[in-house]
Amino acid sequence: MVSLSTRCIAEFLGTFVLVLAGCGSAVFAAAFPDIKTNELGIGFVGVALAFGLALLTMAYAIAHISGCHLNPAVSFGLWSGNRFPGSDLLPYIVSQVLGAMVAAGLVYAIATGKPGFTLSGSNPLATNGYGVHSPGGYSLAACFIAELVLTFIFLIVILGATDGRAPKGFAPIAIGLALTLIHLVSIPITNTSVNPARSTGPAFFAGAEMFRQLWMFWVAPILGAVLAGLFYSRVLGESGAPVVGEPQPR
Amino acid sequence: MVSLSTRCIAEFLGTFVLVLAGCGSAVFAAAFPDIKTNELGIGFVGVALAFGLALLTMAYAIAHISGCHLNPAVSFGLWSGNRFPGSDLLPYIVSQVLGAMVAAGLVYAIATGKPGFTLSGSNPLATNGYGVHSPGGYSLAACFIAELVLTFIFLIVILGATDGRAPKGFAPIAIGLALTLIHLVSIPITNTSVNPARSTGPAFFAGAEMFRQLWMFWVAPILGAVLAGLFYSRVLGESGAPVVGEPQPR
Amino acid sequence: MVSLSTRCIAEFLGTFVLVLAGCGSAVFAAAFPDIKTNELGIGFVGVALAFGLALLTMAYAIAHISGCHLNPAVSFGLWSGNRFPGSDLLPYIVSQVLGAMVAAGLVYAIATGKPGFTLSGSNPLATNGYGVHSPGGYSLAACFIAELVLTFIFLIVILGATDGRAPKGFAPIAIGLALTLIHLVSIPITNTSVNPARSTGPAFFAGAEMFRQLWMFWVAPILGAVLAGLFYSRVLGESGAPVVGEPQPR
Amino acid sequence: MVSLSTRCIAEFLGTFVLVLAGCGSAVFAAAFPDIKTNELGIGFVGVALAFGLALLTMAYAIAHISGCHLNPAVSFGLWSGNRFPGSDLLPYIVSQVLGAMVAAGLVYAIATGKPGFTLSGSNPLATNGYGVHSPGGYSLAACFIAELVLTFIFLIVILGATDGRAPKGFAPIAIGLALTLIHLVSIPITNTSVNPARSTGPAFFAGAEMFRQLWMFWVAPILGAVLAGLFYSRVLGESGAPVVGEPQPR
Repeated sequence: MVSLSTRCIAEFLGTFVLVLAGCGSAVFAAAFPDIKTNELGIGFVGVALAFGLALLTMAYAIAHISGCHLNPAVSFGLWSGNRFPGSDLLPYIVSQVLGAMVAAGLVYAIATGKPGFTLSGSNPLATNGYGVHSPGGYSLAACFIAELVLTFIFLIVILGATDGRAPKGFAPIAIGLALTLIHLVSIPITNTSVNPARSTGPAFFAGAEMFRQLWMFWVAPILGAVLAGLFYSRVLGESGAPVVGEPQPR
Repeated sequence: MVSLSTRCIAEFLGTFVLVLAGCGSAVFAAAFPDIKTNELGIGFVGVALAFGLALLTMAYAIAHISGCHLNPAVSFGLWSGNRFPGSDLLPYIVSQVLGAMVAAGLVYAIATGKPGFTLSGSNPLATNGYGVHSPGGYSLAACFIAELVLTFIFLIVILGATDGRAPKGFAPIAIGLALTLIHLVSIPITNTSVNPARSTGPAFFAGAEMFRQLWMFWVAPILGAVLAGLFYSRVLGESGAPVVGEPQPR
Repeated sequence: MVSLSTRCIAEFLGTFVLVLAGCGSAVFAAAFPDIKTNELGIGFVGVALAFGLALLTMAYAIAHISGCHLNPAVSFGLWSGNRFPGSDLLPYIVSQVLGAMVAAGLVYAIATGKPGFTLSGSNPLATNGYGVHSPGGYSLAACFIAELVLTFIFLIVILGATDGRAPKGFAPIAIGLALTLIHLVSIPITNTSVNPARSTGPAFFAGAEMFRQLWMFWVAPILGAVLAGLFYSRVLGESGAPVVGEPQPR
Repeated sequence: MVSLSTRCIAEFLGTFVLVLAGCGSAVFAAAFPDIKTNELGIGFVGVALAFGLALLTMAYAIAHISGCHLNPAVSFGLWSGNRFPGSDLLPYIVSQVLGAMVAAGLVYAIATGKPGFTLSGSNPLATNGYGVHSPGGYSLAACFIAELVLTFIFLIVILGATDGRAPKGFAPIAIGLALTLIHLVSIPITNTSVNPARSTGPAFFAGAEMFRQLWMFWVAPILGAVLAGLFYSRVLGESGAPVVGEPQPR
């Protein structure tokens, strides 16, 4: 068993990579040279790939250390699914949020190295939002439902792909590409969170208006994740004893 | 052996995810901000990835429960290839169609959260169609042939990648990416079905005109799938005894 | 050992899928709705994915039957690398060319189901070409070198990923994505062949002018492949005895 | 143990493929038919895929021979992480740089086969640069930080995915897609190096002005890599004895 402090360092580092790569790709590369003449930029497909590949690659790199949650909703869903001890929730989540904040700060610092950069647009620093801060202008209700349902699906993939009956070693592929999938669907809706830490990092630097919308990206993902943990373990889970107490190897 | 009711719940959930992610990505994200100035939208490549990754990820999540068909044509093809019992066809297909309908309803509900959304265009809610409802205006004959041949190919990949002689654990990658491949080829032709449940969900909400074309997306895929099952088991199959009676682990 | 006739059927089917999906994606979906306003089309990235995913998926589906060459240059390279018997070269190559021709005919047939379709442009039906038939206008010398070197690289990946020292089961991923990689580089140069069968199918239907350029897409790929087979087996190969006489399991 | 000379040949060949495919895709295919009307070109997403898939495929092809570093920073990071002997650093790096130079020369030669080609733009032959030679005009400081941090992350993935506790056989997928991820984030910043050999090849042919910026693409990646090697081995590594002296099987 890896010590809690080492696992928290891994969670910090992994969430740092997820937010740096995911939000960084959106800020630096979604449109190039600019939004009017986006000849070469990576668009939403590229951003969706960046978030998913960050999770896929870090899962192969550190899942054997911390389980590679990188996301408070994932930690909550694994807890409600009897795969993760409640006593580790707080240190994991603190580590994840700190990693996301340092990453968002670094994205901001690099972005200011480009002449003329300002925090602007409906989603500065790739923040998440609803209503007037939804990229496509979707209502709060539509955004809440999307975040809840997509996080539910995300956790079903995580719980299923790490089930003892699933093939060994493939879970990072399934889980990372599930995050890509979720972004392909919902960037226009909320800029895609399904991850309270990922939402908190950029919001911290983007100003009070974005911060006021942050509650939704804690409530909806965690609610969806907890429901998925209950559903998988009660309805779809192995008939044998559930695994309790330490992060599952993926 | 997992109980039939649990397997049907898994098929319902998996088809729900497939249609929510696949049709949802098409409705919400194919063009952004709009079709005239599609600077950031995911285009047909993104929609093709969404359908394929939904199948790939759900196969790792639930293939150990239900086999992860998510598609009446797949169930029929596995049946004709002696991999699935005919007695389970009806409950599987009912579960798949219900999952697709709930997903299409949710896509519709979220879409109406965007001001100004209406059911419009040749393929509202990402329905499938031929002739005047083919995205590229392809004739009924061309559409029928495309659906039949591509479903045949899809089942060959499914039957081959789950053959006992193929490497273990990789089938979800092969099968999911085969669905992406099929979309890369045929979205302009029929908006790509190869899956009667996926066609039925959106058609249910899109109105009578789309519903009248639905027959083709049941007949052509199932015919192609049944032929593939016969072909693989008779011509390419293992010389040993065919597996009969329960869903193959993938 | 699977019988030669069954292996030839698998090669026919696999090459059919490769050309239907690869050339079909280029003809139907590269530009949509049309080349002037390509808002949703899959572009060269999508075509590159289609060729690679066709090979990846068919390799999982039929490599246990025929080795899944789908390409006369691959068969030649495996022969020069002591992995495939010379006596099977001719039946394999005939099967591959027939599969490619039937696929090209089907692409043509479906394409004519769209009102207004004509064989036009520098590369009708996704044929390969050089000089005036190079998509980007590259010279014969540049095209010849590109085809030779890229086929050399393709065979190095095939021989290396199926080497007994490489991890088991992953070869279709490496080999399929190598074909995607090759297309990402060279569609503008020759429309990318590295496969004489893939070149022959569309050229058969595209008219005499494309047929006159076909020699290059037999000579350059096969030369590159034979050199790679010799190089890998003599310089990089295992020190133990080379495997001779039957297709390698991938 | 494979002889040092054979391993150096593999490193030469692998780096040749990486630069030919990565820089070649950028030069030949990023924009098509041209930058003004880029209807079909692969954009930054395609270039990011090309670099990553080149590494993924070559890792399956030659990691069992040389470890498939293809990058002086990777060799340094594996050395500082106690996975690679310092005595092999110089021959590996010389082989990598030579492979990159030959590849850049071949890209140049093929490019001149297109009428009207000239070395122009801010990054001729896909060279790396900062300040006025940053694609997006990012400052030296921003570019230095980006290269350092992204190479740090790259080595964490390499060291983690080849850790004895990670699942076997998947490291090439994780490592190759990590390189894709890094390109998705940073092509607009430095045109993405994280690899001194990849930077040196094109700079050699692109003229003195690009050559004067080359120092940065040696210093920042190697510094980031060495720090990652120390961090992983001291903080995240296995508690058992580190592996010293020969390239890790991936």
